[in-house]
Amino acid sequence: MHIKSEWELLNKIGALVKNRGISASDLVEPIGDDCAVFKTGDGRLGLITTDISIESIHFRRDFSDFNDIGFKAMMGNISDIAAMGGKSRFAFISLGIPDAFPEEDVLRIYDGMIDAANPAGVTIAGGDTSKSGELVINIALYGEAGDRLIRRSGASPGDIIYVTGSIGDSMAGLDILLSGKLEHEKQFPGLLEKHRRPVARFADVDELVKIFSPSSMIDISDGLLSDLRHIAEKSGTGFEIDAEKLPVSDALRSYCSIENKDFTGYALGSGEEYELLFTSAVKCMAELKTGLKVSPIGRVIDSGYFLIKNNIRTKAVITGFDHFDK
Amino acid sequence: MHIKSEWELLNKIGALVKNRGISASDLVEPIGDDCAVFKTGDGRLGLITTDISIESIHFRRDFSDFNDIGFKAMMGNISDIAAMGGKSRFAFISLGIPDAFPEEDVLRIYDGMIDAANPAGVTIAGGDTSKSGELVINIALYGEAGDRLIRRSGASPGDIIYVTGSIGDSMAGLDILLSGKLEHEKQFPGLLEKHRRPVARFADVDELVKIFSPSSMIDISDGLLSDLRHIAEKSGTGFEIDAEKLPVSDALRSYCSIENKDFTGYALGSGEEYELLFTSAVKCMAELKTGLKVSPIGRVIDSGYFLIKNNIRTKAVITGFDHFDK
Repeated sequence: MHIKSEWELLNKIGALVKNRGISASDLVEPIGDDCAVFKTGDGRLGLITTDISIESIHFRRDFSDFNDIGFKAMMGNISDIAAMGGKSRFAFISLGIPDAFPEEDVLRIYDGMIDAANPAGVTIAGGDTSKSGELVINIALYGEAGDRLIRRSGASPGDIIYVTGSIGDSMAGLDILLSGKLEHEKQFPGLLEKHRRPVARFADVDELVKIFSPSSMIDISDGLLSDLRHIAEKSGTGFEIDAEKLPVSDALRSYCSIENKDFTGYALGSGEEYELLFTSAVKCMAELKTGLKVSPIGRVIDSGYFLIKNNIRTKAVITGFDHFDK
Repeated sequence: MHIKSEWELLNKIGALVKNRGISASDLVEPIGDDCAVFKTGDGRLGLITTDISIESIHFRRDFSDFNDIGFKAMMGNISDIAAMGGKSRFAFISLGIPDAFPEEDVLRIYDGMIDAANPAGVTIAGGDTSKSGELVINIALYGEAGDRLIRRSGASPGDIIYVTGSIGDSMAGLDILLSGKLEHEKQFPGLLEKHRRPVARFADVDELVKIFSPSSMIDISDGLLSDLRHIAEKSGTGFEIDAEKLPVSDALRSYCSIENKDFTGYALGSGEEYELLFTSAVKCMAELKTGLKVSPIGRVIDSGYFLIKNNIRTKAVITGFDHFDK
């Protein structure tokens, strides 16, 4: 049988591992959250996340510089660790390198990884290389947390849903690249930058946790609705989003106005934003020390996924990236 | 510039990471040994290794069942952790899956990984999947060690060089598969088994360490001479191998006799054996509790790499697998 859905495949893999594999009492959080979490001693927790990026699926050489490709691959993992309240520490890089791939470009990929790693306190500590037919980048990232661990599963009805920064720019940046409209590339450098070189919220997560004590958290990698569904499924709840409250950049508004598009669609569906999406019982409008805005965008409810727009409540149609969806 | 040698590329990457990346005082062993090692608290050490396997480079569907492919990929990582004296704990699997690849075969790969993981005490704790042009398997494996850590760098002139089990079978098994000689496949199932499904020495490493207190250790993944050179380079020493003492199986002797080949070449060059190669000041012939033989095969010397055969001492010609070598 051919693979129809990534989620279905992951569920089958998860069941196989659970049924046939051995369990471990010190594995605090197995497959299913942003990272796996285990006890390392001294009451400390270790976190590991891994992400595979493959050319033509995850990136295109004509859209992104190799430095940007390395930067983004590293940042996606840093974002996963931050989304559980952890601190990223050690990265392990596996590269599959095609024939005739210039050595300089391999080093540019590493340069971009280091650009992302350094401010987040990450040391590249190991890896592996091989020949391959297409460029493959896999990063495994180890992080640490004390006893503070924020899962996807802690949301309760009544909690407020918050998101950091503004959302939607990454998808708009990709649209501009796909359209090939050079004038847009010049007019909206911020949208392209967010697509090529998004910055995860590792610098804000400590302050955010202090202010909001999040009941659940995830980073936006698939898209706001899709990632919010992960929280809802793990927490056994539903959600209700106020479309008018979604924080979008002036650049996205302006681009959507010119192209006659609805910016709400971008805000709800754009992936690889690496913004933090969380729920909290704390009611608060906050701007963090770095200037990062935190916006309330809806509420956790008992069940169902809803969108409120122009005072009309409709079922949310969840789109998200599935590699095997056709 | 195109990539000419994997080692040269790794050296350049290592230099870049050292010059531009941040260092970490709790990173005990950075890039360069079988695993990276870091402090996790309570005086305990964490170890991480990662290996990428790519179809047509590392395995062939017509030579190995998907179960074997998963088994061997997992075992290679378990072998790396054992080679530093650690205990493997949590595995993170990244898969790149081609179009039209059957779901059943993905699950067979996982089945093989679990077959390797269970006896070694490894829990599959996370991962990532993506579409890809060719099958890609990356495993990152986390292990633990107390204060006992065996590096590649501790060998001293005068130490005896030991190897576990018998060596050479894996390369002979591959030769049989490449030759397509069906009668050999039937006659030498053990050679094929060692190529398809080698078992790392995780079950013996504790006893081995107690008896021998190894000054340095590595697992045979590139080939005996090539891996011994890693020890020599890290330790600043040379080595001298007694060709007649190399432990080879009866099957390999018999195969080499029929094919009119020299089994010494197989013993010296065969990779992916996952036997342990170590140096020790302890002089001892041992058979471990599991029945595993440990054989002295030579001595650590001040400098130079030598082979003694028929009482003639010659410079060792080191061959080993380099993905980018042409």
